Amino acid sequence: MIFYDCPTAPSPRRARMFVVEKGLEIDTRQISIADGEQLSPDFLAVNPRATVPVLITDEGTALTENLAIATYLEARYPEPPLMGRNADEKGRVAMWNAICEGQGGMAVAETFRNSHPAMKGRALPGPLDLDQIPELAARGQKRVAAFFDLLEERLGDSEWLAGDAFSLADITGFVFVDFARVIRTRIPEGNAATQAWFDRIASRPSATAC
Amino acid sequence: MIFYDCPTAPSPRRARMFVVEKGLEIDTRQISIADGEQLSPDFLAVNPRATVPVLITDEGTALTENLAIATYLEARYPEPPLMGRNADEKGRVAMWNAICEGQGGMAVAETFRNSHPAMKGRALPGPLDLDQIPELAARGQKRVAAFFDLLEERLGDSEWLAGDAFSLADITGFVFVDFARVIRTRIPEGNAATQAWFDRIASRPSATAC
Repeated sequence: MIFYDCPTAPSPRRARMFVVEKGLEIDTRQISIADGEQLSPDFLAVNPRATVPVLITDEGTALTENLAIATYLEARYPEPPLMGRNADEKGRVAMWNAICEGQGGMAVAETFRNSHPAMKGRALPGPLDLDQIPELAARGQKRVAAFFDLLEERLGDSEWLAGDAFSLADITGFVFVDFARVIRTRIPEGNAATQAWFDRIASRPSATAC
Repeated sequence: MIFYDCPTAPSPRRARMFVVEKGLEIDTRQISIADGEQLSPDFLAVNPRATVPVLITDEGTALTENLAIATYLEARYPEPPLMGRNADEKGRVAMWNAICEGQGGMAVAETFRNSHPAMKGRALPGPLDLDQIPELAARGQKRVAAFFDLLEERLGDSEWLAGDAFSLADITGFVFVDFARVIRTRIPEGNAATQAWFDRIASRPSATAC
């Protein structure tokens, strides 16, 4: 296997944390987004959509989406289980992972990419150069606030997002909560359950792996 | 199990097609989005985020995301497999499902919700009332065009999106390609591989189930 990583971006960090939590060591190539290496001909031959992470599987498939990489590794290396130990838990992991992606990560990313000067003309990842839309940044801020409310409500009832076991959903939620610093947003003061959950994950070796 | 469905929206159609492809009969309740029933107190008690589909599992969990519903049903009822028969195929199904969601469905939905008069103030599903952003509709159109290019390239090489077997990824792609009619967009003339794939899926009983 070959893992294409980037130390500065949230999407490859999700895959990297998953790999470390599985206890795997995979041949890793660094792609510097700061230097535009994701748009180089060499990397576009690996992934024409110009995004990291990418995992080249043992079978030679280039998997270009976080959930695809996790799904492959979970099937190949079932221990420790990170995507649920039974049908109901598998469903809950998939649900909270999708919520963290769609309502957390998307909201932070759309705020960041549509407001930060460094993202001018790069409002979406990938090969299309798209203009920033300031109203989308403003809307994203509202959605981030709603996401923090949702996390606090869930984590007030449940140790981990999907139930009583750490999972992929916690990795996704943690990475996007941490990434919210780029839009100067932190866990709201008083959201004690979210802060305790975040701190528990931050102390795991996977959280600082690079 | 209880399945909350809606005959007019693409997201519940994805879940419904998956249920039919599995050969399952599940107690189904219809939620009329046209009548705003997703915002009724009764339904908000089921799903406070006011979206369909929802599956109440045998264990009593309310699964509110398409992928969560599919993941649960695949684990409970493995035959016929719709999410991959081995690790590599599972990864490919997850990848193409994510691509169809993120690059196809999201692009169609953001075009529709940010331009259609009926969606005024409802630019995203869920409980937040958000204003339309016309630039987002224009950007969505560009993304839909890129998605059709990508589909044609893939389906020129592969019978189904994830390889040689029909899967969840094909359901997702099919539903969003069909849904593009709401933004007056059809499979581009000359995209023969995509049209042949679409027609193969349209002839399956699941495509017309309601």
